[in-house]
Order: sequence, then structure tokens, then C-alpha cells
Amino acid sequence: MDPTQFETHPSKYKHWKLAVNGEIATLTMAVDADHPHRPGYELKLNSYDLSVDIELADAIQRLRFEHPEVRCVVFGADLDKVFCSGANIYMLGLSTHSFKVNFCKFTNETRIYLEDASGSSGLASLCACKGTTAGGGYELALACDETVLVDDGNSAVSFPETPLLAVLPGTGGLTRLVDKRKVRRDRADVFCTTAEGIKGKRAKDWGLVEDVVSRSKWDDAIAARAKALAAKQTVTRGPAVQLPELSPKITEKAFTYRYVELAIDRAARTAALTVKGPDGAPSDLTSADTWSLRAFRELDDALLRLRFDLPEIGIVTVRTTGDRAHVIAHDEALAKATTGFAREVRLLQRRVLKRYDNTARSFYAVADTADSCFAGSLLELALGADRFYMLIDGDEKVAVQTSVANQGFFTTSTGLSRLDARFYGAPADAAKILARGAEGPVPSEEAEQLGIATVAADDIDFEDELRIAVEERASLSPDALTGMEASLRFVGPETLETKIFGRLSAWQNWIFTRANSTGEHGALTLYGQPERPQFQWKRT
Amino acid sequence: MDPTQFETHPSKYKHWKLAVNGEIATLTMAVDADHPHRPGYELKLNSYDLSVDIELADAIQRLRFEHPEVRCVVFGADLDKVFCSGANIYMLGLSTHSFKVNFCKFTNETRIYLEDASGSSGLASLCACKGTTAGGGYELALACDETVLVDDGNSAVSFPETPLLAVLPGTGGLTRLVDKRKVRRDRADVFCTTAEGIKGKRAKDWGLVEDVVSRSKWDDAIAARAKALAAKQTVTRGPAVQLPELSPKITEKAFTYRYVELAIDRAARTAALTVKGPDGAPSDLTSADTWSLRAFRELDDALLRLRFDLPEIGIVTVRTTGDRAHVIAHDEALAKATTGFAREVRLLQRRVLKRYDNTARSFYAVADTADSCFAGSLLELALGADRFYMLIDGDEKVAVQTSVANQGFFTTSTGLSRLDARFYGAPADAAKILARGAEGPVPSEEAEQLGIATVAADDIDFEDELRIAVEERASLSPDALTGMEASLRFVGPETLETKIFGRLSAWQNWIFTRANSTGEHGALTLYGQPERPQFQWKRT
Repeated sequence: MDPTQFETHPSKYKHWKLAVNGEIATLTMAVDADHPHRPGYELKLNSYDLSVDIELADAIQRLRFEHPEVRCVVFGADLDKVFCSGANIYMLGLSTHSFKVNFCKFTNETRIYLEDASGSSGLASLCACKGTTAGGGYELALACDETVLVDDGNSAVSFPETPLLAVLPGTGGLTRLVDKRKVRRDRADVFCTTAEGIKGKRAKDWGLVEDVVSRSKWDDAIAARAKALAAKQTVTRGPAVQLPELSPKITEKAFTYRYVELAIDRAARTAALTVKGPDGAPSDLTSADTWSLRAFRELDDALLRLRFDLPEIGIVTVRTTGDRAHVIAHDEALAKATTGFAREVRLLQRRVLKRYDNTARSFYAVADTADSCFAGSLLELALGADRFYMLIDGDEKVAVQTSVANQGFFTTSTGLSRLDARFYGAPADAAKILARGAEGPVPSEEAEQLGIATVAADDIDFEDELRIAVEERASLSPDALTGMEASLRFVGPETLETKIFGRLSAWQNWIFTRANSTGEHGALTLYGQPERPQFQWKRT
Repeated sequence: MDPTQFETHPSKYKHWKLAVNGEIATLTMAVDADHPHRPGYELKLNSYDLSVDIELADAIQRLRFEHPEVRCVVFGADLDKVFCSGANIYMLGLSTHSFKVNFCKFTNETRIYLEDASGSSGLASLCACKGTTAGGGYELALACDETVLVDDGNSAVSFPETPLLAVLPGTGGLTRLVDKRKVRRDRADVFCTTAEGIKGKRAKDWGLVEDVVSRSKWDDAIAARAKALAAKQTVTRGPAVQLPELSPKITEKAFTYRYVELAIDRAARTAALTVKGPDGAPSDLTSADTWSLRAFRELDDALLRLRFDLPEIGIVTVRTTGDRAHVIAHDEALAKATTGFAREVRLLQRRVLKRYDNTARSFYAVADTADSCFAGSLLELALGADRFYMLIDGDEKVAVQTSVANQGFFTTSTGLSRLDARFYGAPADAAKILARGAEGPVPSEEAEQLGIATVAADDIDFEDELRIAVEERASLSPDALTGMEASLRFVGPETLETKIFGRLSAWQNWIFTRANSTGEHGALTLYGQPERPQFQWKRT
């Protein structure tokens, strides 16, 4: 199968139209039915699949970097009576379990990052639902700051997933309904089991939408709301920086970028991820080529390809190379810079690191060469890994080092920093490391004593210990590992985001495996066919 | 199949020995291999099944009510080299998916209620692991206040589930490891993938146990720790009240208790739960027959039978009958009483209501008769239900009423009261209802306006509307409903408890459906056989 392309550009969009007009941008959903991600189904009625969502993710990213003047993005549709009918059911019916799960994870991330753009970057969002807004369509609306529904006696917002398809609205919908929009839970229960949805005044009274507006007043009302949302934004942004193509070299054996490489060993079901540090001290902090942006964009792309195109790779070793001082200099230059662009870069790094935490593969960070470079923002890769192996070398060249990047900005989805999550309940230990790390490199043995390294071993033992650990990991059940890692990685407080990826997604994964949805007589399988689904009635 | 018996008594225990000696009780695990819950496997090496856990739940309950002098319970075993080897694998391999899930839920509740006994009732717990402590055995230890492991060069604590069985330690283990005991997550990762476990000094250094003690010093060390734990307890308890048998009448058509009835319609896959209020004002608040205790114990027993013995009953209507003033009088008498027994009764009510929230069936509360009695503690059943239907009657006899029981003591597992969860984000609405409810009965129409009733309808529409709603619910996929209700019911903050039932259990349910654990060549299926499991390697 061809590799999945996560890079795109507005000039290539097939399913969205991006228009920027001063401080307001519009993203018009105009899904081309004839260009699905894979052959076998048509994207009718503004239903979406991975290719549609890749464009959406690209558009949001570009608004952040390339259009800092925009303060509100308005989502609309080019159809007359439909805003969006949600994820394409036939696509879901044709997909493997692992594709469905990864598709939902990616669409969830896109929506969480839309909320992040509003919360952190002064880019508000308004969903202008001038027509039917079903399933994933309404989940997009829930991720926006405000939603307006047309009041035409017909258009409704709805979650038909449970009644029609025997699955959940799995892109955050259930969680956002009660936890974000605070819809009363008994009303949410009625809403989620009413296939035709809720329209008009009731949709507003129940808190499902901010407002309902007639067709005649639509354009003015949407323009006024967008303007009001834009006026509320106070975050300084810019300067504008265009995001160039990454153009990796993709082969059967490796994904190769400028700073990132993922080398693949299909027989062993392992991969080796290497991230290079910057070539020198930071020079131009308004360049898309600045290491902090380029390297993390590459890492993001590699992680997405790993998820979708390498399903059998269960464990990834993570190494870094370069000069620690350069990484730290880049981290500090970014943290000191007062431009919106610099903050945008840090926010992107934060999102990429979250994508890493949320990737269902085992990650073992490895520091075993003299030019190993787990410092600052790259140290986060070791702190986020399931384990960290460090070689004890005679001249203590193998070491870790902290920077401003480890001091709290790079929160995980729990809201804790990776250092605080690692030392959950022992904040003094985290503080000790920051204090020690600021003094200079911390060699392997000391790093183990301080709790940074899981294992530090000298060169008599190191290679064997690591090799056996990787082989053992690769031999374990991938399902059990996914559940185990999801429980151990997200220690501490739960947030809307972790509830979506933990509770909601875990239930959805279970439901996707059940005969009642995806079996021969399941509702998802039979959707659109005359045959009625047959359910197994045991409640579990 | 014979109905499951959740009632037992220490005189009937087959698997535990309860001994009380002043302020210390010992619960000795002495599992009788020849008395499994169902035929087909032997309970060797202190492995456990549902029958073992039913006795454990009973013992903890009786310590709370019948032995208020006890301030610390010490868990031990009667085997020389094994404390507990966890849930019986052959039992799991032979069980249906729904039994496995319900078994795990029950064992999770038992362990959470053990923590509740420590947190709320001054009954501390010490796990004295004088031998191998594997899987569910270590999960019992994690639920105790302290764990001591024997240091004999051999005995380890371990979670072999992932490496040996391709499932999770599903009885709260993963969550408690990092969230409660705050074991560093990379160490937790090593621990959970090391089948042989961790022993001796390392177990202590990693925070897996409080202490390791040699065999020669064992008895003295355990006695001293138990004494120290007992000395810390300051909660007033007692007087002792013996818990009599409930002796319900169980038929194919109904479970009938003194105050509770569950009438079963197998053809419609529905059941009707009715809870009667007290016969009069409270008289003897030291009697096990006091309504607040008796009725809620009966409800608890009925809920457990529903879960295990009626898997195909998907939706339950919940009605109450009686005199609202009597319920309120009982609630207030309990809240005012200063005895430990009165507090114990309220804590039991709280646990039973949590069991109700956590039961994977749709609950529709219904108030449609003049003697409907959703007041105070019984109103919690309506607030906890997925929906609440109220009949608008001409003379406003159908009404709800609040009491002290709705003011915050009956927290759900999120830590919110049911009223606060219902009005999440709108505390003023919850306060308004408490103020209004204190003035007297709130009739249906007003209850709907205030947000208590989901639907209030007059008698022209009521019966049809309710009938259709119940039929529709019964027609939906039971799996999707379970996932949906689990997302909508637990709005708001997450706690250790909700993390266990949401994140961890949802993942475990998923893993239990996967071929890698329960398929023909799955690890759980093949456990104990010479054949090696064969895994499907796709990571999801």
C-alpha cells in the first residue's frame, strides 16, 4: 500500500476551501465525494475520512503560523442543507480495527488542537451549521468555541451513532457534551439515543448550541458573532512564517528527514527513531527552518506514519544525537523571544510531544553514544518514554541535561509536565533534577540515582541488557501493552483530553471489536443495506 | 443455572478465616481448592474466584458493622510460601466475556470498599505477604493501607498478567501502582512486564511495599505494624449490630425482598425495580432492621443478582412507593445520630448507590403513582438514573422532595453529589433545588422546570411516552449503551475510583475481546498448556 501522506497545502485541498479576510478566516467544508482516502466508498453529504481530516489539521496549523492576523476561524459548508454528516460510515465499515482506532485518534487530536489554538494562540473558532450536523460534524462543532445552528424547521444537531450504528460518537462527543458544554446528563442521554437529533429552540435551551438563527438573518448573525469572537482575542501573534514541505525520503527501510530518521526492522517488529539536535546556535528565529520547528514537525510526521503505515512495529528505540548546548540554546532563545511565532513553535513542540505520549507503541529511550543529546526539549523524549536506558561510559560523555524546556511549559495531556508526571507525588525530586540539571550535564550513573534513567549499565552489560529488553517487549501481546501503557503513562489528574483518550476511546475500541457493531450482522456492517442488524443481548 | 448467592456468613466461609482479637482482626486466606464457584477448575495456591471474593466482601462488611472494636484488619494466608496467586486463570479462561467483566467489577468494588473502610470508618488494613503475591493478590495488597513482604530470597510481588496472559492486572492494579503508591512510571513499566516480579530490598526501594521483613522477625513485625495502624484510628464506631440474612424469594419472575422487588420480563428484556419506603418514623436506630440499612442492603443484593444472573435484561425502570415524610425522617435521624453505627449505615447507602451508578444497565426512574416516594435517599435513585419520567397528575400527588441525604454526603465515585453531577457547571441550580425541596414536595411540572425530571407528561401522553422510550432503549446495542452511559454518568472530575472503572476497566474489556488473550491461540486460553500463544502483531 502507498504510504499515507500527512503533508498537504491549501493549494492542494480537495475537501476544504480556506479563505482569509482580515481577522476572520473561513474554512468551508466542500468534500469531494470522488476523492476518498482509499477507493471503495464515496464521500457524500460532506461526510469525512482521513484525507478530509488531514486537510483540516493542515489548515488549522497554517492559520496559526501563516496567518497570524486571523483571530477567528468560521467553519461552514458549501452544501445547502447539510453542514457535515460525520465520519463516512462505509469507510468505517470497510476499515480494519487498527485503522478505525488510529483514525479516531487522529481526528480527536485535530479537534483538541483546534481547542488549543483558541486557548493558547488567540485563534477562536465558530461553527456555522447551516444544515444537518450529524455525528462527527457535531463533534467538530463541540470543539469550537461557539456553535450556531440554522433554525429552518429541519436542521438538527445529532449523535446517531448509538441508535443507528451501535457505536459511540468517538471523537470526543460524549465527553464534551457533558464535561465541556455541561449539557445535563439525562438530556445528553436523550440526545445521544435520538437518531434524528434536536433542532431549533430546544437545541439552544438544552445548551447544545449557542444560538439558533433563521436563514434570512444567517449571514449577518454569523459575521457579527465571528467579529465579536475575534474582538475578544488578546494574544500577540506573528510574524507570519510559511511552512515549507518536509519532503522526507520514504522507503521500506526508513523514513528519512533532515533531523529525524525512523529506521525500520520489519522482521524484529522494531524501529529505531533518531532525532538530531541543531547544527549550531540559533540564528534566525523567524525562519521555518529553525531547528525547534523543523525537527518537531518532522517528528510529528514520522509518528503519524508510524501509527498508520507500520502497524506491526511494536517497539521503538529513541536516540538523540548532537550537541546538548545547542539544544539548550535553542530552547532558551525560544523561551525568551516575545514574538507570537516563537510561542507558536513552543506550542507545536508541546503538541508533537503529546502525540508521542499518545502513540500506542512502546518507546525505550536510549543514550549510548558520546554524542547522545537528551537535553532540554529532546530530554522530554526520554521522560515521555516507557523506559530510559543509559550507558555508563568511562569519561562520562553520555549524560542528560535540563533546560527551560523541562520547567513546565511542555505539559502532557494531564496538565502535568513530564518531569512532574515522572515524580508524581514527589515534587521535591523533580525540583532537585531541575536544579542539578541547570548546573551542567548529568552523567548516566547520577541520572539513574536521580531517577531520570530507568537503567544505567556499563558497557559489559549494556548492549545485552538493552537487546534482551527490546526482544522481550516485542514478544508481548500488543493489545495488553497498549492498555498497560495507557494506564501507566497518564498518571495523575484527568482532563477533558485524557478523558477523551482514556475513558471514551477505550470504550470505543471495545465497542468496535463487538459483533453488535462490526460482526456479520452488526449495525455498522449492515449500514445502508436492507438487512436489519441482529444484536447479541448480553449486557456487559 | 442456579442463582448466584451473594449472602454468606463467617460460619459458612470456605475460603477465609476471620478471627477477631481486640482491636486487630485477621483475615486468613485459606482457599479450598475443591470449592470453586462453578465446577471445572481447582482453586490451587490461594487463587481466587467469585466465591472467594464474595466471602471477602462479606467479611469487610461484617467487620464494619459487627466488630466496631476492630481498628486494623491484617490479611494473611495459611500457606507456607504463597500469600495469593491472584484470580484463577482457568476460571477466567472458562468464563464468558460478560462474566469476566462483572467479576472484575465486583472485585474492584470490594477493594475500593476496603479503602473506604479505612478512609471513612477507621478500619485500617495491612497486607502481610509471607510468600508469593501475584496478580490479584498484589492488587489486594495495593488496596490495603500498608503491605509487608517477606524477605526470604524468593517471595516476590508481581503482575504477570501482561507477559503471561496478554491481559491487564484489571482489579485496579495499574492505576493504584502509579496513582496511589506513586511508583515511578518507568519502574512500573518494568514491574508490569517482569513475570517473576520484584522481591526484597528492590521491592521496598521502588515503593511496591512498605517494608520487607525476614521470616524470623515476621510475626513480631506484623503485630507491631498492625498495632501502630490501629493506634492511628480516631473514628468513633459502634455499637455492634449483627447483619441478619435477607432471605429474598428468588424466582424466574422476580426477586422479592421486604422493601425491594425486581420484577423480570425476559421477553421484553426489561425489569421493574421497586423500592418501598419505611413503614413509619424511625424508632430503633441500633437495629439491623432499620429501614435505611435493610432496604439498601436488599437493593445491593438485587443489583448484584441483576448483574450476574440477568445478563440479557438491558433496561430497568425504577419506582419507589411509600410516604416521603417517613424517608426524610429516617434520613434526618441518621444524619443527626452521633453513633458510629448511624454513620456506617449512611456509608453503606453511599456504597450501594455507587454500585447502582456503576451497573451497566439503563435505568429510567419513574414517578407515576400517588404513593411514589422519590424523597431524600430514594431521590438519589432518580438523580442517578439515566432519565427520570414524572406523571403530571391533577392533584399534584406525584412529587419529589429533598432531604439532608441530597446535600452532599452521598457522593458518586467522582466525588460530586448526584445533584452536583446533574447540574455540573451550574451549582446555583443545584442550590435552588435544595432550597425549594426543603420547603415541601415539588410536583412533576415544577420538577421538570427545575431540571429534576427529564420528562413530565400528563396522563394522556405519559404511558405511551414511557412505553415507547423503554422499548426503544431495549432495542439498542447493549455494548454501545454501556460505553455511552459510562461516558455520560461520570461527568466531572476523575478520581482513583473512576480511573479504575473508566480507563482501566474499559481497556481491560477491550483486551478481553481480543484474540491475543481469549482467541483460540490466545495467551489466556492456552495458559497451563504446552502450546505457545500466537499473537496477531498489529498495534492498535
